[in-house]
Amino acid sequence: MIVGFDIGGTNARALLIDESTHTVIDRARASSAGEAPVVVSTLLRLVDDLVTRNETTVDAVGLGVAGLATRGGIVRYSPNLPDILEYPLGRELGAALDVPVAVANDASAATWAEAKLGSGRGADDFAFVGLGTGIGTGFVVDGRLVTGTNGFAGEAGHMVIEVSGPAHLTGQHGPWEYYASGSALGRQGREAAAAGRFDAAIALAGSVDAITGFHVARALAAGDDDAARVFAAFCRWVAVGCANLVMILDPARIVIGGGLSGIGHALADGVAAWMPELTLGSAHRPPVEIRMAELGDEAGALGAALLALDEV
Amino acid sequence: MIVGFDIGGTNARALLIDESTHTVIDRARASSAGEAPVVVSTLLRLVDDLVTRNETTVDAVGLGVAGLATRGGIVRYSPNLPDILEYPLGRELGAALDVPVAVANDASAATWAEAKLGSGRGADDFAFVGLGTGIGTGFVVDGRLVTGTNGFAGEAGHMVIEVSGPAHLTGQHGPWEYYASGSALGRQGREAAAAGRFDAAIALAGSVDAITGFHVARALAAGDDDAARVFAAFCRWVAVGCANLVMILDPARIVIGGGLSGIGHALADGVAAWMPELTLGSAHRPPVEIRMAELGDEAGALGAALLALDEV
Repeated sequence: MIVGFDIGGTNARALLIDESTHTVIDRARASSAGEAPVVVSTLLRLVDDLVTRNETTVDAVGLGVAGLATRGGIVRYSPNLPDILEYPLGRELGAALDVPVAVANDASAATWAEAKLGSGRGADDFAFVGLGTGIGTGFVVDGRLVTGTNGFAGEAGHMVIEVSGPAHLTGQHGPWEYYASGSALGRQGREAAAAGRFDAAIALAGSVDAITGFHVARALAAGDDDAARVFAAFCRWVAVGCANLVMILDPARIVIGGGLSGIGHALADGVAAWMPELTLGSAHRPPVEIRMAELGDEAGALGAALLALDEV
Repeated sequence: MIVGFDIGGTNARALLIDESTHTVIDRARASSAGEAPVVVSTLLRLVDDLVTRNETTVDAVGLGVAGLATRGGIVRYSPNLPDILEYPLGRELGAALDVPVAVANDASAATWAEAKLGSGRGADDFAFVGLGTGIGTGFVVDGRLVTGTNGFAGEAGHMVIEVSGPAHLTGQHGPWEYYASGSALGRQGREAAAAGRFDAAIALAGSVDAITGFHVARALAAGDDDAARVFAAFCRWVAVGCANLVMILDPARIVIGGGLSGIGHALADGVAAWMPELTLGSAHRPPVEIRMAELGDEAGALGAALLALDEV
């Protein structure tokens, strides 16, 4: 069996995966809070729980981590996991369990899961775009996950698309995720509401300030016209970054996942509608397919397990 | 022997390459003007000239073409080669010569040449950035040239970095090459001169309107302070796009080539100076090496020949 982890700022999620069928046998989760040795203890306890409960053994462990994780398993930079920075998380866990450990960025891990088992199947070249609090991305080129020289590839959420734009919480000006993340959708909803053009969201949220991307999505699902306008403008921002990725990597397909994927196919369709206008030479190239991800919020842990499988 | 072509808007350049040593045995060039059959005749004549002159035979031909060229050798989109659009250039040439033909974008071909024989050697992950009239780019990931699903990858010059910026001649707003190409350097020189802050360039060019990137480079080489300011601002624009590429692909190295590479190491150093400020998490990642290309303006034809070698 393989255990795949997705370690976020709040929780660590673990999946027990059958290495031949790639199916999820069991699940566990715990808080990811604490200093690095505490986090290691938490992960070991989750492995132990899964192993004991299922009367099995573990052959490898995969870690999907929110942040810049080196190929060697050291988390170099993670706004969400300040307590485990520069700590050899992969090595410590591998030593304690005496199994190989693969470590990757969480979005890259999710990308690999979609490549093998989800919406990326059949495409040798595709981009995964996870829209949540920020934007997490990953790329498959020629059937292989792009890791980069350090393991830091796939951070297109931090690609600048408006260099004279406002400062984002990362300190950058105008990165893609400032405009096209779930947080951005909430802000765009609040802006429309404050301008008197989104009463439905105020009714749902209770006040302008309480509006989040969730309320915009709900108003959209209810058929509200203002929500449709906010959403279409948001989809254009998503498409601006997608068009850049098309210029750079020429993927056959872009798979949209992350928290906003609850919106469903309207999101893929909304982005696809802008692509011809934003993609240079679109009259001369086959349209890039825009699809929703299939694996939901378990993609990161699942992909981490699949990456670990390559180490066995 | 292999013949590598670089087919630009004005000229077709041919190199005769020894397939075991990868050395250039001979050179030829001709106008690339004319309808598609005329261009094919021109290329065939160049091959014949090289073969006859060197008493040899040709085993494969590589074509580096300015524009979107499919893996199958059809030029789908090229502002510089309007007469050969949608024409099966690769197939026609292959049929006439009865040898395999590889077709690639010219910047991708140059990337492959730098990877194998130039400044990319030793780096499994690197980006080539050619600064000329526009910006031509190419990427090596995990030791392999990124072609994309259609063969259109590596068009990062068309990556939008200022979505509310001015319209570029491509119709896009604020693409990288609007700010960071050789043409952009000339415009930035004219803007500084028009504002009374670049007299040296006016003296060199004769008038504000006559200033090009070439004059900025000459004033810079002469030690002019105004030129240094224009150039530093230009290098920041180059670095903005390079930082985006670092976020996406995490290359070990960025190799700068193209017409502006005549400026020399000051260009690599000027770009490198901005990278820490513009690269998110730069305190936590090894610096990306910025190097000048080594192969000059023969890189495209040379790389096309090397790509053809893989077909033999």
